[in-house]
Amino acid sequence: MKVEKISELTTNRLSVYLRCLNELLAEGKRTVSSDKLAERFHLNSAQIRKDLACFGEFGVRGVGYYVEDLRDHLQKILGLDKNHRVGIIGAGRLGTALADYYGFTQTNFDVVALFDNDKGKIGQRIGDVDVFAFKNFAKVAKKDKIDVAVIAVPAQFAQSVLEEVTKSGIKAVMNFAPTPLRVHDGVKLKTIDLTISLESLSYFLSHVNNINGNN
Amino acid sequence: MKVEKISELTTNRLSVYLRCLNELLAEGKRTVSSDKLAERFHLNSAQIRKDLACFGEFGVRGVGYYVEDLRDHLQKILGLDKNHRVGIIGAGRLGTALADYYGFTQTNFDVVALFDNDKGKIGQRIGDVDVFAFKNFAKVAKKDKIDVAVIAVPAQFAQSVLEEVTKSGIKAVMNFAPTPLRVHDGVKLKTIDLTISLESLSYFLSHVNNINGNN
Repeated sequence: MKVEKISELTTNRLSVYLRCLNELLAEGKRTVSSDKLAERFHLNSAQIRKDLACFGEFGVRGVGYYVEDLRDHLQKILGLDKNHRVGIIGAGRLGTALADYYGFTQTNFDVVALFDNDKGKIGQRIGDVDVFAFKNFAKVAKKDKIDVAVIAVPAQFAQSVLEEVTKSGIKAVMNFAPTPLRVHDGVKLKTIDLTISLESLSYFLSHVNNINGNN
Repeated sequence: MKVEKISELTTNRLSVYLRCLNELLAEGKRTVSSDKLAERFHLNSAQIRKDLACFGEFGVRGVGYYVEDLRDHLQKILGLDKNHRVGIIGAGRLGTALADYYGFTQTNFDVVALFDNDKGKIGQRIGDVDVFAFKNFAKVAKKDKIDVAVIAVPAQFAQSVLEEVTKSGIKAVMNFAPTPLRVHDGVKLKTIDLTISLESLSYFLSHVNNINGNN
């Protein structure tokens, strides 16, 4: 199954281009060259041309790209013309914050359910979203047509939660637990490990301080 | 100023090794080879040897690595032996969830203050953390020795918040607003853009569905 025809680094860059094009559109710009796009958003113009060339001929000589056309193309390539329904497992602070996260509504993802094991949380309503018992995940996922799971539970429970959700047929999972997880083939897992980012800041600070004498 | 002696991809891998070593230590393991480490945690053993070789000779022929020694070395390399104090700007759902995020306490970061413009939030206490007026950021940051800022405000305010916090001398910033930001030299910015990860899941799902006939 050749699902990943282009690399994730490429799709990440397409996401960035899409954001820039939306900004230009909001300003009423109709065309943009790869050089202008690169200059304005601190990107690499050769990389832009290379990335977009993978998907056909978007540029017009002497004009550049038509902003709206290119935006529509990128949305289609990224599958943003279809909606996805998200179930968040873990109705703690992070899970409930994510249920309300503006990034989901900005894209094509709707959070439709929260899941937890805590009887005090099950049956509650957080914003527009109900909290269900996690043991009923498969049933609720089927009924509510959930196709994306977000794992927001402590690290030690993350792998078993992942097993359960993929058993119920979920193929796309976003994991916030700071631990590496193992997935089966055909399932896409994105781990958002904030501690890795924090440690990279820590490394930077420790070397800045060594050089500047603890400034 | 040569701050980044090793690439961020390398520090990210060191963070992963550190997590694995902590897991082995918790299990009472005293030594581990790069092959065993790679096998157990789905890593690349040649890459492990190469990464660790940058920092001196940690391995012992016939033994592998001493787990605790290597863990201590990695913590020192990543600067985790020093504490950092975090101010979070934006006391909305995401900001307050982050104030309580277990990842901060797992590492060497303490969240010491929240900041907002909303008069209804200023003066409140969320968990152990007070909410201050953002206009007083420089003053509070100096008094509370804040050296890391976390931006958890809507995208359109993120750049101006970044300017303010770097003006007050902050050199490490983590940004959750889904927008590219411009920083001055000597400031380290990590953007955690969940929408980019979501769009990469979207791309995957759209291609799985095309292949499997909307399974």
